[in-house]
Amino acid sequence: MALGEFARIKTYFAPLATAPGAMGLTDDAAFLQPRAGYDLVLTQDAMVEGVHFLAEDPAKDVARKLLRVNLSDLAAKGAAPLGYLLTCAWTAKTPEKWIAGFAEGLKADQERFGLSLLGGDTVATPGPLSFSLTAIGEVPEGGMISRRGAKMGDWVFVTGTIGDAALGLDVLQGKVTPELAQDRDALIERFRRPVPRLEIGVGIRDLASAALDISDGLMGDAGHLAELAGCCLRLQADEIPLSDPARRCLSQGQVKLERLLTGGDDYELVFTAAPQVIAGITEIGAAAGVEITRIGEVVAGSGVELLDCDQKIINIKSKSYQHF
Amino acid sequence: MALGEFARIKTYFAPLATAPGAMGLTDDAAFLQPRAGYDLVLTQDAMVEGVHFLAEDPAKDVARKLLRVNLSDLAAKGAAPLGYLLTCAWTAKTPEKWIAGFAEGLKADQERFGLSLLGGDTVATPGPLSFSLTAIGEVPEGGMISRRGAKMGDWVFVTGTIGDAALGLDVLQGKVTPELAQDRDALIERFRRPVPRLEIGVGIRDLASAALDISDGLMGDAGHLAELAGCCLRLQADEIPLSDPARRCLSQGQVKLERLLTGGDDYELVFTAAPQVIAGITEIGAAAGVEITRIGEVVAGSGVELLDCDQKIINIKSKSYQHF
Repeated sequence: MALGEFARIKTYFAPLATAPGAMGLTDDAAFLQPRAGYDLVLTQDAMVEGVHFLAEDPAKDVARKLLRVNLSDLAAKGAAPLGYLLTCAWTAKTPEKWIAGFAEGLKADQERFGLSLLGGDTVATPGPLSFSLTAIGEVPEGGMISRRGAKMGDWVFVTGTIGDAALGLDVLQGKVTPELAQDRDALIERFRRPVPRLEIGVGIRDLASAALDISDGLMGDAGHLAELAGCCLRLQADEIPLSDPARRCLSQGQVKLERLLTGGDDYELVFTAAPQVIAGITEIGAAAGVEITRIGEVVAGSGVELLDCDQKIINIKSKSYQHF
Repeated sequence: MALGEFARIKTYFAPLATAPGAMGLTDDAAFLQPRAGYDLVLTQDAMVEGVHFLAEDPAKDVARKLLRVNLSDLAAKGAAPLGYLLTCAWTAKTPEKWIAGFAEGLKADQERFGLSLLGGDTVATPGPLSFSLTAIGEVPEGGMISRRGAKMGDWVFVTGTIGDAALGLDVLQGKVTPELAQDRDALIERFRRPVPRLEIGVGIRDLASAALDISDGLMGDAGHLAELAGCCLRLQADEIPLSDPARRCLSQGQVKLERLLTGGDDYELVFTAAPQVIAGITEIGAAAGVEITRIGEVVAGSGVELLDCDQKIINIKSKSYQHF
């Protein structure tokens, strides 16, 4: 039997409201006492069943992805997470078990990334399931990393590897079939459980001139940095870091480079910084155990240029994922 | 033709992002510099087509109701609004005109209530339309009105009149047919465009011992105050303020008192305060041009007691609206 609204909040969600300002979800509102000398960073991302996740995806993974895509936005700003508000739209048929799994996924990630549920809303829907999450983080006053600060002569960096999540989705949809079972699992993992680069974000806060998290594909998101700075991001295709599974799919002709560089859901950071701070950046990557790779530079012009090893332009048709 | 995601944001929503921290919606995140000595109050409420609003409701009204129910939560905390984040889930068939109307409704209310769009997300859905809004307000440090502070001997107050919105919904659904066209219009107006009692909320901040906004019916919401305080709220049925249209429907037998006191969507404030501060409360109501009525007192016991003019208990069956 489905629990009523209040029982559901009490059973599954109140235990996630660990911050004092959440008041155990006994209130319609929460409070937050900002630390003196800090700004707040706010972001909101939503997920709809059938659009952003599949009905058969595990509840735990859906919850984690929802939280993580928001945390990834905070990471790109150099913000440390504090808390979040969550709207859940459940159908009358949503199994209690699914809701329990969803809350479990949130709990695990809250603990891992250090934040608390602060409040939110629970509503009924005829379906599909949908969720909206508002994440709140903090940065020292005026310290937020902007998207618009890339400067001529800066170098362009990315964290981790690019294109795995898009490949993971292709695997789930049967479009790509890696030979190795471990490649299959690794790629799906990257699609279902992106890791927000919070440590890197906080680390590069005073070094990066601009940053964002790659949600719509490297080419498209690098394009945003270029557009806002009024410069061109010139990227070296050979330098763009790919995982071993992605390399194998590529060399077997199962996927094209274009798909890896324009597919969405990487949730890696792309950022620009002056060449002088390279030592600091390397150190931050090493401390976090995350590869940071220089993939290009900021030059005069506009848009994103992708060059091959002969410095010839590679034409990429679709530059980014548009949500509709 | 439908606009793309970015064009839609630029056309309809960027003009609403008036705060510097919203960065014209060119970023995935916003920043907020909290004022020294102030706490933030956060609330989130969602609306789903067919559940919280009707497909034929004007877009402008849907937007305003969404914003206002959130502002009503801030009002109950004594918070002054600062900004909001908004998730919109549009279908491929949502007319551009509807979206334009929705943005127009937000614009009018932002200006009226003094806040800015800060950010959010736009997603695709097969339907129904759904929206989630996170509102952020501020109160002087430690000054938020709680829900749990009602004390024995306190008086119980409400703003405005009770039950009009529920009646307005009944009118829209053809269950109630007021004789006067102006009554019909007034009741629908109350359902579609609740007025958040922000001035009252800020005014009573240092006077009220507990407050909340009535979204699920007076009886049920007063019950929350009683439960959290471990007391009984004893209400005098004859003192509960009703509008003239509601009185006429009641005297014609078109509606029962029970419906007025348990229907949802009033968005009036119910609050408790010590009898000594009555003069201050009257003043605040007069300054805001909003009737504030004493409807009962806080006594030993639990739950909500509704008494008739002979001080006999009136039994009310359904105490509040449950969302599912």
